[in-house]
Amino acid sequence: MSRTFSLDEVSKHNSPSSCWVIISNKVYDVTEFLSAHPGGAKIILKYAGKDATAAYEPIHPPDALDKNLPREKHLGSLDSAAASAVKEAAQNRRKTQDELRVAAAHAAKLPLSRMLSLWDIEDVARKVLSYKALAYYASAADEETTDRENCRAFSRFFFHPRVMRPVSQCDPSTTILGFKSSIPVFVSGAALARLGHPLGEANITRGAGRAGIIQMVSSNASLSYAQIAEARVGPQQPLFFQLYKHQDDRIAEERVREIISLGYKAIFLTVDAIVAGNRERDIRAPFELEEQEREADKAADSTDKSKGSPDMPAKQEKEESGNVNLLGTAGALIANDDLDMTWERTIPWLRSITKLPIVVKGVQCVEDAVLAAEAGVDGILISNHGGRQLEYALPSIEVLYRIRKQRPDVFDKLEVYIDGGVRRGTDVLKALCLGAKAVGMGRPFLYAQSAYGEEGVVKAVDILEREIVRAMRLMGVSNVKQLVPQMVERVDWQPILSRL
Amino acid sequence: MSRTFSLDEVSKHNSPSSCWVIISNKVYDVTEFLSAHPGGAKIILKYAGKDATAAYEPIHPPDALDKNLPREKHLGSLDSAAASAVKEAAQNRRKTQDELRVAAAHAAKLPLSRMLSLWDIEDVARKVLSYKALAYYASAADEETTDRENCRAFSRFFFHPRVMRPVSQCDPSTTILGFKSSIPVFVSGAALARLGHPLGEANITRGAGRAGIIQMVSSNASLSYAQIAEARVGPQQPLFFQLYKHQDDRIAEERVREIISLGYKAIFLTVDAIVAGNRERDIRAPFELEEQEREADKAADSTDKSKGSPDMPAKQEKEESGNVNLLGTAGALIANDDLDMTWERTIPWLRSITKLPIVVKGVQCVEDAVLAAEAGVDGILISNHGGRQLEYALPSIEVLYRIRKQRPDVFDKLEVYIDGGVRRGTDVLKALCLGAKAVGMGRPFLYAQSAYGEEGVVKAVDILEREIVRAMRLMGVSNVKQLVPQMVERVDWQPILSRL
Amino acid sequence: MSRTFSLDEVSKHNSPSSCWVIISNKVYDVTEFLSAHPGGAKIILKYAGKDATAAYEPIHPPDALDKNLPREKHLGSLDSAAASAVKEAAQNRRKTQDELRVAAAHAAKLPLSRMLSLWDIEDVARKVLSYKALAYYASAADEETTDRENCRAFSRFFFHPRVMRPVSQCDPSTTILGFKSSIPVFVSGAALARLGHPLGEANITRGAGRAGIIQMVSSNASLSYAQIAEARVGPQQPLFFQLYKHQDDRIAEERVREIISLGYKAIFLTVDAIVAGNRERDIRAPFELEEQEREADKAADSTDKSKGSPDMPAKQEKEESGNVNLLGTAGALIANDDLDMTWERTIPWLRSITKLPIVVKGVQCVEDAVLAAEAGVDGILISNHGGRQLEYALPSIEVLYRIRKQRPDVFDKLEVYIDGGVRRGTDVLKALCLGAKAVGMGRPFLYAQSAYGEEGVVKAVDILEREIVRAMRLMGVSNVKQLVPQMVERVDWQPILSRL
Amino acid sequence: MSRTFSLDEVSKHNSPSSCWVIISNKVYDVTEFLSAHPGGAKIILKYAGKDATAAYEPIHPPDALDKNLPREKHLGSLDSAAASAVKEAAQNRRKTQDELRVAAAHAAKLPLSRMLSLWDIEDVARKVLSYKALAYYASAADEETTDRENCRAFSRFFFHPRVMRPVSQCDPSTTILGFKSSIPVFVSGAALARLGHPLGEANITRGAGRAGIIQMVSSNASLSYAQIAEARVGPQQPLFFQLYKHQDDRIAEERVREIISLGYKAIFLTVDAIVAGNRERDIRAPFELEEQEREADKAADSTDKSKGSPDMPAKQEKEESGNVNLLGTAGALIANDDLDMTWERTIPWLRSITKLPIVVKGVQCVEDAVLAAEAGVDGILISNHGGRQLEYALPSIEVLYRIRKQRPDVFDKLEVYIDGGVRRGTDVLKALCLGAKAVGMGRPFLYAQSAYGEEGVVKAVDILEREIVRAMRLMGVSNVKQLVPQMVERVDWQPILSRL
Repeated sequence: MSRTFSLDEVSKHNSPSSCWVIISNKVYDVTEFLSAHPGGAKIILKYAGKDATAAYEPIHPPDALDKNLPREKHLGSLDSAAASAVKEAAQNRRKTQDELRVAAAHAAKLPLSRMLSLWDIEDVARKVLSYKALAYYASAADEETTDRENCRAFSRFFFHPRVMRPVSQCDPSTTILGFKSSIPVFVSGAALARLGHPLGEANITRGAGRAGIIQMVSSNASLSYAQIAEARVGPQQPLFFQLYKHQDDRIAEERVREIISLGYKAIFLTVDAIVAGNRERDIRAPFELEEQEREADKAADSTDKSKGSPDMPAKQEKEESGNVNLLGTAGALIANDDLDMTWERTIPWLRSITKLPIVVKGVQCVEDAVLAAEAGVDGILISNHGGRQLEYALPSIEVLYRIRKQRPDVFDKLEVYIDGGVRRGTDVLKALCLGAKAVGMGRPFLYAQSAYGEEGVVKAVDILEREIVRAMRLMGVSNVKQLVPQMVERVDWQPILSRL
Repeated sequence: MSRTFSLDEVSKHNSPSSCWVIISNKVYDVTEFLSAHPGGAKIILKYAGKDATAAYEPIHPPDALDKNLPREKHLGSLDSAAASAVKEAAQNRRKTQDELRVAAAHAAKLPLSRMLSLWDIEDVARKVLSYKALAYYASAADEETTDRENCRAFSRFFFHPRVMRPVSQCDPSTTILGFKSSIPVFVSGAALARLGHPLGEANITRGAGRAGIIQMVSSNASLSYAQIAEARVGPQQPLFFQLYKHQDDRIAEERVREIISLGYKAIFLTVDAIVAGNRERDIRAPFELEEQEREADKAADSTDKSKGSPDMPAKQEKEESGNVNLLGTAGALIANDDLDMTWERTIPWLRSITKLPIVVKGVQCVEDAVLAAEAGVDGILISNHGGRQLEYALPSIEVLYRIRKQRPDVFDKLEVYIDGGVRRGTDVLKALCLGAKAVGMGRPFLYAQSAYGEEGVVKAVDILEREIVRAMRLMGVSNVKQLVPQMVERVDWQPILSRL
Repeated sequence: MSRTFSLDEVSKHNSPSSCWVIISNKVYDVTEFLSAHPGGAKIILKYAGKDATAAYEPIHPPDALDKNLPREKHLGSLDSAAASAVKEAAQNRRKTQDELRVAAAHAAKLPLSRMLSLWDIEDVARKVLSYKALAYYASAADEETTDRENCRAFSRFFFHPRVMRPVSQCDPSTTILGFKSSIPVFVSGAALARLGHPLGEANITRGAGRAGIIQMVSSNASLSYAQIAEARVGPQQPLFFQLYKHQDDRIAEERVREIISLGYKAIFLTVDAIVAGNRERDIRAPFELEEQEREADKAADSTDKSKGSPDMPAKQEKEESGNVNLLGTAGALIANDDLDMTWERTIPWLRSITKLPIVVKGVQCVEDAVLAAEAGVDGILISNHGGRQLEYALPSIEVLYRIRKQRPDVFDKLEVYIDGGVRRGTDVLKALCLGAKAVGMGRPFLYAQSAYGEEGVVKAVDILEREIVRAMRLMGVSNVKQLVPQMVERVDWQPILSRL
Repeated sequence: MSRTFSLDEVSKHNSPSSCWVIISNKVYDVTEFLSAHPGGAKIILKYAGKDATAAYEPIHPPDALDKNLPREKHLGSLDSAAASAVKEAAQNRRKTQDELRVAAAHAAKLPLSRMLSLWDIEDVARKVLSYKALAYYASAADEETTDRENCRAFSRFFFHPRVMRPVSQCDPSTTILGFKSSIPVFVSGAALARLGHPLGEANITRGAGRAGIIQMVSSNASLSYAQIAEARVGPQQPLFFQLYKHQDDRIAEERVREIISLGYKAIFLTVDAIVAGNRERDIRAPFELEEQEREADKAADSTDKSKGSPDMPAKQEKEESGNVNLLGTAGALIANDDLDMTWERTIPWLRSITKLPIVVKGVQCVEDAVLAAEAGVDGILISNHGGRQLEYALPSIEVLYRIRKQRPDVFDKLEVYIDGGVRRGTDVLKALCLGAKAVGMGRPFLYAQSAYGEEGVVKAVDILEREIVRAMRLMGVSNVKQLVPQMVERVDWQPILSRL
């Protein structure tokens, strides 16, 4: 690693036969890695012989190169002239239209104190997120029906509120796998937080720690698991781990052992995302963004012909578009995951390498809830991955409702959680009435940290806590144990939603 | 009280450490009261050392200072120079954009004779109400789903009209708790009528008296209970009282004794509003109004720079907005209410201090209707507070329907009323068919008095009476006793509503 | 009647104390009739001492004056100078904006051959009808929910079409009360056809006669019953009569005897319109029209100040609007109808004066269908009067469906018809599958004659016949008897309608 | 055929009494054929004495003249001067607005690689299709309710996805009547592919062959059955034949014998289109197109008066429109079909002339599915002809669901297919879970070949295969046999669709 390189030298390795890239002033030979890159060779070759830092950083944890690229391919560092040149080029780079839009949106956003609901925060986030980030965060499968229906399903559950019950003392806290949570809500695993904010997952970790709720950390986080563990507000802050199991058991085991050693407290084995869902908004994003920039450039060029060219070239659409990456971001993230997990094989394997509680994330029907209980896991998370995987998976709250109706015994055998479509304290309470121990939320915390960083996460929990306590009181309930199935009714009409 | 003050003297007490305000030319020391003010200290401090009359009056009954501020803090009056100056300042105050809009709307409004339905009146009211008043009147919890569904629910009940029955004689009158009512409708408690019209609740009292229906007076009326009693068209006009029970039983008892002595005829104990609902439209109103005015000022300033500054300053949003009042108007009104009422304790307590009929307002499920009957109260008002409290409380007519289906015996044990979403005579008749003795309406009467004062209230009853009589005849019914469950059917589809 | 009058003489009788009007060059003293006029005195007084022909003619049958005004009040005729002056004034009268709009719409309308469906014809009619006429034809009760739901209800009935059945021979004809009908459709009583076309009901009579279907003539036709009878294409063309029963049995009997003597073949006793429905569109029409004209005049005046004043004066809205006629057109038409009809009294009375078949029009629930069968009438017409009477009456097809489900025996005892919401051949067939003998249509024929006169009526039947035959064939049915309940299914979802 | 003609000579035969037309430089005497032309005489007479090639070709297979016009009416060829003149006239013909629009749309269309879903392809096709072609392809009966509901119905079926099942090996292939298909999808018969693309059905044949799926060829194809057979990628590629049975058994038999001799592998007897559905969009197309062109011409003429006149004259609308062709394109195609098929007669007749498997296409209710099984056919295709025939036929997936619920034994007796409304891989899988062996798609393949020719067809299958395999994996299924009824649930609410 002591060798240094000039830009000139690096720039000669600009082809599939010899492909070097610069990331944070270090030089890597990725020639042999090209074919193994889950995101495809093409995106790397775009930066062959050049600096790739800006594109690389937001979607890879810092330890990714250490974990995936043999030591001998870490060639060395840029010499100081090269480092300066790279730095200067980055600074002088003409901002894209999208970057300008984002900067303006950040400048104009309302202060955090004006956020009354998670919808308010989402509205801000949708304005301040880059096109690419929003496409990744918001996208869902096919026509995004299950995503939309996740939300709409909650609206069919109404309360039977009770009156004349003492509620001045009202405690919304609960435990999840034995760990205390200030409200019955946890952060569901959500990848690539750095797409939305430079500090990424650490915002969520610190915010959750301060607010007293638990974060489930995605295998596909954009910070390393260690960095996230270090971001905790204290060593007692519990973290859960969302395990995407590698198809190679040994690699998977390595990942598990890593998070055990970092002090993570439970494993959420992800079974609803063994292949990537068809997230067309995400897949289309690069093309639509290119077209936007091209349009903007055209307009700009016609008024001002003196400026330099932006980063993204206007040429060659026809040829390039021949290679649409149909997997999208998600596909790249999970390209090597295990497609052949089974109750019989995978649970015992996981039990054999850890004593941590095991939760199966992605149960989507009554039958599998029963099988999970029989397999002896500690919990299930009813989840359709935010509608991002199988289009026309039943909305999560509907699956919960069916378990309550058909197999209430499941709730005695393990803890049941749900995620998908939760936006309000009343949503949380509906799930708890039906038997959920807690409710996961993913996108809302990504939006909160994107818009307002760590403070946004604290605020989101604060909003939820106020909503939960108020609704508990208005339901005549002073602690979560009093939330029972008799207090909700699934109605036979579809309310009109003012959001959606 | 004989002392008089100059404006100069008052203006020195302009801080939290010594805070005086002028209201109707009288001077009050509210320094110690600041922390106890249900609406928060901040709103008072805005007027510290200054005249607060315009902000104070529409939302406080005249006896509020007597009831809440110790006599010794009533410092005295303005001297005549000061009184003149205050008066002149009020007259010269530049009108806000919203005030100008309201004045124009009043000037252009249709004559009362053109009002064909309560919707027509609401349309006018929405135009003539101040931004703040409309936000308070119209707002409901969260996404306002229950508010909207209150209305939509009625549309799922269709009639089985009967033909070939004599209906030339048709009597829509009924009794409520033994008191005669010209139609089976009463005014449900609705606070702060002076926000909409300077005469406030008295408009409703006189209008109801002339039209022969009964008003339920809110604890949070903007006139004193005595003023309202005095507004009656005659001593025989019955008034009901909507009791928000103070957490301190003695203060609550004082309130009850006051209204007994004033001749009120029944107590509607409010149990659906022990904490404030999340009415975001109301909470946002001050900010949104400020922004509107600022925008308007900017536009005005650019064309006319000579005019003085309006009342509302354009500066300091960032700082101020740090203190969003999350309780909204409703929160301030009920800040000291009793969160620990129970059937076992509260009903006997109330019985112990009054022989008036007791109605529990805010029953929202079958179970509590049964408990109310067992507690021996005289009536229940099925109400979700106009959708302003617990989002996803069932629509009132749906609760009534469930009681009819599941526990029809309840109707034999007490009188059942409903409110929420009633806009047409047919809505009233649907409720009566299902067993309601009468139907309460809140917002429609607030809108009627806001748009047209007392005459608006009379007109609203007139419209309802025509609608009720016409529909009774077309249903083959000549008095309210003939309205039976067989005459309505809850259908399994959702009609399209042309309003909403 | 031999006396003649000058305009000057007539013009002196221009007050409530002496009110003369000119109609078709004849002079009438209507002073004593003012208070008896079902449409109110005010509308007559507008023409006191003046020519009222244009306002009078479209909404009164020619024999109305003979029937309602004593002979001695028919004072005589205009002298020839006066007649000329009236004629000239009528010709020189400045056209209103609405008249100009209508004339332009007529000029631009598509040829009849381009009409593919009844919707097409309605689209044309909505353009060529005067504001007032459209308001009367299209209006329905309150929010017009039942009117809209009449249509939507049909969309919830789907077919179970049968295949592999011989259908080259396909006969859509049926009988109604024993009278042959080319298709199972009849013209349901619809008043005031002359509002839409100068020839009025005669268009329908001739069109129906040519097309082989039967017309039910309204008591409130704008031609005399005799004129309509004379319009028949031949003496064998059957006509039915829609009887609005006068509260005075003798007057009612007179009406019945008149239509018997004119050769009408059946009596449809109307029981769904004993008082007028709340048709706000119709009630509002005069005011909205005035406002439109005023606006148009303002615009016109600003460009051309030389033209004379139009018929409708721009002054005095405030005063006039004090007298909104809350009954609307419908109210005037049925002001004297019998509110106290009963099965026990009215049917035997009617039987006692005629041997014609009796059909009760306006049955709206299963119970009354059963009572009608027990009363021994020959048929029932399930009708909610096109949604114009009781808002939230069940859609007609839903009532039919309930009779089929709950009391199929009714279909054996009398003929059952329905009207309301029928627009397509498939609607007709759904009703027939459920047991209807035929289906009535009102507005579509009013629209057809308004847009295209007699030819429009023939075309409408032609369209329906094509639609019915095609659908019968595609259902595997070759005559109406093969249409059975098994061929329709009421589905549990609501299709999206491209119309409505 | 050796005779040659000048244009002058041909042009004399320009009337009903002697009508010659030129098609592809050949001269035909169609005088006696005029009355037999299924599309009506009028359209032919428009070209009497003139060149009709451009209008004739896209909607007639090349062998139509041989099959329908006696040899002696094939008069001969144009002489070379005439051929040149015709060619030149065709080249110089001023393009219509619609042709210009289509050309521009083709130039601007996205590359095929950007197509992510069948919806994307349809979006392109809707832009590049001529007005007439789109009207024919997209139109459906009446308000197009069944067409729309075909799609919406799928959205009410949700999955019960299974997790923890090995799915790395996933095979989406199946067999249809014993013939291998790469995915459980076939091309449902769809007529007149040349309206959308000059190569027409051959695009589909070759695309299907390359992609490994089976094409069902319509009797009304715009290429001859032989041409289509020749277009196969190899002799083993199976083709099915959609038989529209002629009312004359001998002619029908001739058609069957022809396709047998050409090697077609199965017969889909079409029973849902014995008469044409009421496709108003298609019927209106000529008029609306004329009006568009006229408008465009008007605009063009006002700016450029020198250009020659376009093909479509602006005159004579009034006269022409007197002859609206109410049958539309579909009506012409099936004018001579057999309206009297029966299970008893038609199936044995067909069996008597062929040993090929027989599938009844167009079963639309449970009863007929049972009758088909009893009649011993090899399969049924549940189809309402894409909503183009009987409006309010039940959506196909709903019929399938009813068979599954009411008569699951049917699935043991024959193969069941459905078509109508399928757009996504998940739609296909829902049908397979309910018991369908495969799913037909018509319009999507017409759109694919119209937009991108043969490559579009291959792409469409590619998209479907990816969608099917992904969804199978996410459902925990590795081959089509594992798709069982327990994996779908028909829900009781209607999801919102982002398309439609």
